[in-house]
Amino acid sequence: MFREKIKVLDCTIRDGGLVNNHNFEDRFVRAVYKALAEAGVDYMEIGYKNARRLFSDKEFGKWKFCDDDDIKRAIDGIDPNGMKLSIMVDVDRVDIEDVKPKKESPVDMIRVASYVKDIDKAIFLANHFADKGYEATINIMAISRALDNALNEALHQIEKECKAKVIYIVDSFGSLYQESTEFLVKKFKSILKNKEIGMHSHNNQQLAFGNTIEAIIHNVNYVDATVYGIGRAAGNCPLELLLGFLKNPKFDIRPVLDLIAKEFIPLREKIEWGYLIPYAITGILDAHPRGAIALRSSEKKEMYREFYESLLGDDID
Amino acid sequence: MFREKIKVLDCTIRDGGLVNNHNFEDRFVRAVYKALAEAGVDYMEIGYKNARRLFSDKEFGKWKFCDDDDIKRAIDGIDPNGMKLSIMVDVDRVDIEDVKPKKESPVDMIRVASYVKDIDKAIFLANHFADKGYEATINIMAISRALDNALNEALHQIEKECKAKVIYIVDSFGSLYQESTEFLVKKFKSILKNKEIGMHSHNNQQLAFGNTIEAIIHNVNYVDATVYGIGRAAGNCPLELLLGFLKNPKFDIRPVLDLIAKEFIPLREKIEWGYLIPYAITGILDAHPRGAIALRSSEKKEMYREFYESLLGDDID
Repeated sequence: MFREKIKVLDCTIRDGGLVNNHNFEDRFVRAVYKALAEAGVDYMEIGYKNARRLFSDKEFGKWKFCDDDDIKRAIDGIDPNGMKLSIMVDVDRVDIEDVKPKKESPVDMIRVASYVKDIDKAIFLANHFADKGYEATINIMAISRALDNALNEALHQIEKECKAKVIYIVDSFGSLYQESTEFLVKKFKSILKNKEIGMHSHNNQQLAFGNTIEAIIHNVNYVDATVYGIGRAAGNCPLELLLGFLKNPKFDIRPVLDLIAKEFIPLREKIEWGYLIPYAITGILDAHPRGAIALRSSEKKEMYREFYESLLGDDID
Repeated sequence: MFREKIKVLDCTIRDGGLVNNHNFEDRFVRAVYKALAEAGVDYMEIGYKNARRLFSDKEFGKWKFCDDDDIKRAIDGIDPNGMKLSIMVDVDRVDIEDVKPKKESPVDMIRVASYVKDIDKAIFLANHFADKGYEATINIMAISRALDNALNEALHQIEKECKAKVIYIVDSFGSLYQESTEFLVKKFKSILKNKEIGMHSHNNQQLAFGNTIEAIIHNVNYVDATVYGIGRAAGNCPLELLLGFLKNPKFDIRPVLDLIAKEFIPLREKIEWGYLIPYAITGILDAHPRGAIALRSSEKKEMYREFYESLLGDDID
């Protein structure tokens, strides 16, 4: 029997945009929107809302900024089939006056990405967006490195002060195993009595889907995925696998299969993401993927042993 | 604290050989043997022992037959570092007189691959090899499709009659999720009081590593993996990830990283395995991968929707 409360959020354009500086053509974004809507996906996250003063629009595409007019153009005329739109903001990178009241915007949900240390700022932002009429969430990044007392304090503060409806566990480094996922979900659920919990996983160790299932087993209801697993470095939980697993009859994997064949197989020839050994290494060592990303665009891209050893002494005193 | 009882069996040449008709050069097999020994792997499975009358040696390489002399040549002069050698036999495809007593052979372990329906034959073979001095196992294939009463009966019979030391759960179709893996491991452990349990997973849904961890959580001690996940269709649990996860200090991932860079990245350019949508589809639908393998060598290799729909009505009356 399926669990109706489970909501699938596709962040193909948002997390996938980290691979190509959010330079997706409108044609591509429309194809993704249409396929996701047909597939019965609950939310599509279409990009970041960054302050334009912080990033050059010569270097970055429009989905780094998510102007309402750009969004409207991209989805114009396509049946949403009930699918809502989400955007993400990073603490310290958003100008809140750029965000209009919900009534004037095509966006339904705003997700605030934050480290544990910035949780006060994240709560302020989430409350601000909730007050403007949006569904708001907080996505706690780099959770594998959060010290237990700081994380507990942050979660208690969220429970007490925050209007966000969903709080996400973000396995930024793809370093969680099932046991750590279970531990974190149980912690979140024990403190956040009035929130839904979400799971955003990375695929460095080919565990993005497995950890998402693990989270679902322990009653997480908001799960992130991307088409063909696109996303920064090793990418994310593949949407096609998640839809194949979920039993809600409203989901249809077939539009996603078509989308992969038509758009993502050719795209993967041009830009790189997925299971590659340097990303596996950063996952195993619970390290940020930035070193592995740099390695992949250098001549040393297959020098795995040297890269592994360079990380062994990293971050210690 | 690590669990010393956990034994890693690498079946790179045996399961990987299903991709290239076991046509690996001696140079390649020696490189694999050396790296695995240095990495601290417990067993290397070097191929199948098939009756030569059944397969043409023009079409198939020597690791389809595993003559003792070929094995001796391949490992000659390399320090095994305690690593044992395994071969696999299929029910109805082995001539038992081809198998010399253990004392005369470089092989330590013989694994008998069997469907539930052939368990009587498998028990006979395992007992025969045990009597000849080998460690013997039974690997129960296509377990996702075993009817519960037949599987229970087979396991009880094994417990009562069989000298095999390890009984493997084989997720031939890559269709198991963690909950099914947990269910099967608990069943095996509840009936097989005097055996070790093993896990051999396939990666159709990117769950080979996750299911292997799940099996380990529930006290499975024999786990299969292959270098860079090579193996039929979607391949197997990647050895590099498994070694990164296991905490026994005897394991060293670095020789495997070198081996991937030097041998497996170039090999993957020539032959195909791993996460590909047709294999994901057969995994999701709990189907044999043969249709997907055929699709991948046809002009329809990216026609996912048609392939998916062709399987929906499969196997029903």
